[in-house]
Amino acid sequence: MNPVYPTLENIKEAHTRIKSYINRTPVLTSSALNEMFGIDFYFKCENFQKIGAFKYRGATNAVRLLSDSEAEKGVATHSSGNHAAALSLAAQKRGIPAYIVMPKNAPEIKKIAVEGYGAKITFCEPTLEAREETLEKVQKETGAAFIHPYNNFNVICGQGTAALELLEDYPFLDIVIAPVGGGGLLSGTAVTTKSVNPGIKVFAAEPLNADDAYRSFKQGTIAPAVKPNTIADGLLTSLGSITFPIIQQHVDDIITAKEETIVRAMRLIWERMKIIIEPSSAVPLASVIENISLFKGKKVGIILSGGNVDLNHLPF
Amino acid sequence: MNPVYPTLENIKEAHTRIKSYINRTPVLTSSALNEMFGIDFYFKCENFQKIGAFKYRGATNAVRLLSDSEAEKGVATHSSGNHAAALSLAAQKRGIPAYIVMPKNAPEIKKIAVEGYGAKITFCEPTLEAREETLEKVQKETGAAFIHPYNNFNVICGQGTAALELLEDYPFLDIVIAPVGGGGLLSGTAVTTKSVNPGIKVFAAEPLNADDAYRSFKQGTIAPAVKPNTIADGLLTSLGSITFPIIQQHVDDIITAKEETIVRAMRLIWERMKIIIEPSSAVPLASVIENISLFKGKKVGIILSGGNVDLNHLPF
Repeated sequence: MNPVYPTLENIKEAHTRIKSYINRTPVLTSSALNEMFGIDFYFKCENFQKIGAFKYRGATNAVRLLSDSEAEKGVATHSSGNHAAALSLAAQKRGIPAYIVMPKNAPEIKKIAVEGYGAKITFCEPTLEAREETLEKVQKETGAAFIHPYNNFNVICGQGTAALELLEDYPFLDIVIAPVGGGGLLSGTAVTTKSVNPGIKVFAAEPLNADDAYRSFKQGTIAPAVKPNTIADGLLTSLGSITFPIIQQHVDDIITAKEETIVRAMRLIWERMKIIIEPSSAVPLASVIENISLFKGKKVGIILSGGNVDLNHLPF
Repeated sequence: MNPVYPTLENIKEAHTRIKSYINRTPVLTSSALNEMFGIDFYFKCENFQKIGAFKYRGATNAVRLLSDSEAEKGVATHSSGNHAAALSLAAQKRGIPAYIVMPKNAPEIKKIAVEGYGAKITFCEPTLEAREETLEKVQKETGAAFIHPYNNFNVICGQGTAALELLEDYPFLDIVIAPVGGGGLLSGTAVTTKSVNPGIKVFAAEPLNADDAYRSFKQGTIAPAVKPNTIADGLLTSLGSITFPIIQQHVDDIITAKEETIVRAMRLIWERMKIIIEPSSAVPLASVIENISLFKGKKVGIILSGGNVDLNHLPF
């Protein structure tokens, strides 16, 4: 049995396990943004990760850890987003089947991506109930292992490897910031950062319009996301039973940003850094802008979580 | 007096002169694009260069080579594009004035960029005649040195440093491709590449709708651009008296691409590589797509010339 809470040792083992499959993404800096805000930024570019998001780290770690007999039955999940693409590609690379349950109204572009990685899609009604029921049915039929998008020990360990690489490249950071949805990236980032150097502050960034992690953190119990309405569509989910205690223990604070600041931050990164990030990836910079006094003069590492946007539907 | 044609030695000297001022831009690869076309691509990302384009290399070299007495009178050019921004920032960094002649109908975004770098703009009617007259007037009044955007020995040497870095990182390339407008980037790239390794082929890529370099190369005399009509707005100019002979001597061939292929290639790079490039930078990949048999199975270096696009006016 795995322990419930990952340690730095687990995350280092995950890194050794996955590093030949993932991209070692670059850390970019921008003198324009540094001058604009009086902060030294270090952007870990997971938008350059395979499938365009950090999710490939966790999915690869989980898929590689399956025994041969588990693996041959395949993996399954319900998701229409980056985790579905990540799990599909990770399964394809191991030569095993992936079964993805997806709401039938999911964007065409996401269906095509997942099919392109050779996964089998089962469509369902667009409700959480239908998703879970359909997933259960798929698992029963196939015996596939369910890989949860974030509330999964091995997935968290994989996600923590992004911060591990960031701190290998730039050990002198004062602060590390990750966006928070279900908390997979954040909990992995927090364990890594605080274990490498407890003096580095870890902040989570969340859209004000989907501030369930903020509320959970303040009240000490998991608050569900209530009708979240944000352009940062990767951050709609609630914290999980594994991710929340890790976040309580290792995260210094959660800060939020308004929708218009998220769009402004996204556009700033596109225009000044010439890289494509998805709205969820802009939430850390947006939260810095809205809480600037915490960051002035500091060396701030930001994990840019992904770059999958539909160019036909940009917010600017 | 400088010799008319730069040598590798001149380009190496330029690199030593400018390297503390410029970004050493990364070379990115994309397994998605490699698999899609059966080619190993190596993209030299000058969209990440200061001011968002390779032009900062040549402008910096030219500005740094001025004597103190020349420099204190400043530099001047007529341009509404990347060269204007590049010259303005290079002048600002040396602490000298820059005078930019710009057609009064230039996009607001370009005026703001140049003013942001502290240059003084003089507006003129949007004709070549008016530009040249106004520039002459500005030079008479200020004594500023005219830095031509491409038909200038020192500018060409600066532009050649991008290929120098590319070949330092990846000496085993089979082919190097640069886009061609006035030929500053292309002639610098060609001298560098053929001097480092004459076995590497050098191709130029040009929009079919602005194929004056192609026609010049085939007929052996400079053909003017006749009503060029292309989305690749950095490639509208004609070859110069210095750039053309270098291109004749060192470039293996010029290939072209249709407008729809340029837009397709631009979108492919945005979507698959998650980086922002301007249309001119997509012309090499577009030309590869239209002439695929020349490149199959080869290691191909492509210089992505810049990333300055107006996000309010995208072609997709």
